[in-house]
Amino acid sequence: MGILKFSVPEIFFGRGSLKYTGMCAMRLGAEKIFFVSDPGLEKSGWVDHVFKIIDKESLKWVYYSDISSNPRDWQIEKGALLYKKHGCDVVIALGGGSPMDAAKGIALVASNGGRVNDYEGANRIKHPLAPMIFIPSTASSGSDISQFTIITDMERQVKMSIISRTLVPNISIIDPMLLTTKSRELIIAAAVDALSHAIEAHVSKIASPMTEVHSLKAIELIIKYLPLALESRSLDHLEQLSMAGTSAAIAFSNASLGLDHALAHTLGGMLDTVHGTIHPILLPQVMRYNLCECTDKIAQIGKVVLGKSLASPEATALAGIEKLEAYFQSLKVSTRLRDIVPDRSTLPQICKMATYDSCLLSNPRTATVEDMMQICNGVW
Amino acid sequence: MGILKFSVPEIFFGRGSLKYTGMCAMRLGAEKIFFVSDPGLEKSGWVDHVFKIIDKESLKWVYYSDISSNPRDWQIEKGALLYKKHGCDVVIALGGGSPMDAAKGIALVASNGGRVNDYEGANRIKHPLAPMIFIPSTASSGSDISQFTIITDMERQVKMSIISRTLVPNISIIDPMLLTTKSRELIIAAAVDALSHAIEAHVSKIASPMTEVHSLKAIELIIKYLPLALESRSLDHLEQLSMAGTSAAIAFSNASLGLDHALAHTLGGMLDTVHGTIHPILLPQVMRYNLCECTDKIAQIGKVVLGKSLASPEATALAGIEKLEAYFQSLKVSTRLRDIVPDRSTLPQICKMATYDSCLLSNPRTATVEDMMQICNGVW
Repeated sequence: MGILKFSVPEIFFGRGSLKYTGMCAMRLGAEKIFFVSDPGLEKSGWVDHVFKIIDKESLKWVYYSDISSNPRDWQIEKGALLYKKHGCDVVIALGGGSPMDAAKGIALVASNGGRVNDYEGANRIKHPLAPMIFIPSTASSGSDISQFTIITDMERQVKMSIISRTLVPNISIIDPMLLTTKSRELIIAAAVDALSHAIEAHVSKIASPMTEVHSLKAIELIIKYLPLALESRSLDHLEQLSMAGTSAAIAFSNASLGLDHALAHTLGGMLDTVHGTIHPILLPQVMRYNLCECTDKIAQIGKVVLGKSLASPEATALAGIEKLEAYFQSLKVSTRLRDIVPDRSTLPQICKMATYDSCLLSNPRTATVEDMMQICNGVW
Repeated sequence: MGILKFSVPEIFFGRGSLKYTGMCAMRLGAEKIFFVSDPGLEKSGWVDHVFKIIDKESLKWVYYSDISSNPRDWQIEKGALLYKKHGCDVVIALGGGSPMDAAKGIALVASNGGRVNDYEGANRIKHPLAPMIFIPSTASSGSDISQFTIITDMERQVKMSIISRTLVPNISIIDPMLLTTKSRELIIAAAVDALSHAIEAHVSKIASPMTEVHSLKAIELIIKYLPLALESRSLDHLEQLSMAGTSAAIAFSNASLGLDHALAHTLGGMLDTVHGTIHPILLPQVMRYNLCECTDKIAQIGKVVLGKSLASPEATALAGIEKLEAYFQSLKVSTRLRDIVPDRSTLPQICKMATYDSCLLSNPRTATVEDMMQICNGVW
């Protein structure tokens, strides 16, 4: 074992935990909160709900919601200007990955200066950020747990990964009540995203026993509870998906991700697709590609997916991947790349740009542009 | 699920991670460090080693080592006076549970005033503590991870449990190199203590999926690696015990403990015995007592201990407890209470005092003084 680092925010988890928001802000010394959310959460009433909780503590706030579904560099800069203009001191984000990633970017630029693009890559942030409290509304992008933020560089049309321990929020408040207003499509996209986080973190070159227990738990919960949650929409099942998303995020924040996410970030940056829709297409093929380098690890995943081991690790691993493909098909989501990429001739450029994504560093098997082209053509 | 809270320090884990001590102190804004350790670690050379690392960053320090193996209230007060006299700003503790628990007590009293005895129980600490960096030398008391500190009240002759999220250190640096200078007895005592942390946390009334994955992983690692580590003394095996102790601590810090620890704290307070020697005596009997309230949970433990499930959860649970008893016997440690308690007539008083221990609150089954007497008589 090499030297490993493990960092997790303080977590409040459970139905009704939202009520701790004001108390947490007070504890972090808040006087004026910079509150980031989006129009969807305004419409569903949750933004007003949080306002009421903050108001109980007589805290001042500034509200910012000019965030698109893949947050853009200029949106970060606009937010940071507003933050500084009003002299805010604590950041609260309510939403899916986009408002949370944007809030991290804003906290980063407000305290470290420059443009968000200056910090692309790992460990380039020098100064501490303002305290952050994140309230995720999907299960789960993991931004409320993770050391990552993903911001789109509009000029280069690429999703930048920014990775630093200082991007772990101080407190994550995970209230499954927020999931009850989500559509079927958003529940699937978030759960499939969490599943891909867990699977890529599990086979990562920097996975450790501390992350592996969380990645396997996340896979187990999603395989079991996503179909049940879609059918019942019950809070009990949605709560299990929340727990799965959180476990997956603890794993990937500390073990990083791999080839599937390197490609997904590039595709998302170019095509502005919903991140979660890409994994059912790429993930099984990426697992097959990685198999020779981490058979035992993929067999552990297979054992969870299948509920049993077969005669050999290879057999368990392969049967697990097949079962996963059938699982994605049963969700009636697209499993071919042509449904998402309008022009096949852009694939070489996509694969080339993916080689610069920092997630590739922890993928168990090295991948060249040609390897990635083969994967993409295989699922075209 | 109710609302659960999960809090873990930032962790640096692995051989050689000790070298990050100075960098971490700098990052926490240290100018003058209050450094707590004990004569044993001075003799083994580790105290000097840490001094050299701190000196590289040109940091000033004050050293305190007047700590006994079950730290006492007056030792905390003496340390807090020294801390304030010298205007220290960051606490570093190097050692087993005793120097780390003492360091927490000192940081607490230095910042919150009064006597350490004023804070007995849960959530009674009002003001934030000075930043703390802990370097455990055993695998593991868990004090480097946990929300707990255990200090002996000399007047009442009782071990006080103080529990607060503010007692979680900022950073835990876990370097398995430190284990290589430990005796066979200390390795066993620490591993058995970690095993009892994991088992009691696993069946705790406030366990959650986030803690259960860590408690089961800890049990798996200790059962497998303690015998190997005792035979080989290899760094690879000791490192696995370190990881087990850390996982157990993540579990118990967030899920708390139970009846075995309530009794162990009281016994330790009265008899000043090494904490780890008590569990092989009490733990299997406590598991039998709890069985009717958490059969499935003890069956999960049994499955890990046995490496398989039997025909029913009851059968797996019971066989697991028996295997655990055989495991303790194979370690050639005492498994009868008479070897530790000199006078049987003190048992009623011990059991009465144990009813006040806060660990009892999370035990899966309520226990009266009579229940505890029955357990103690059963293993006399």
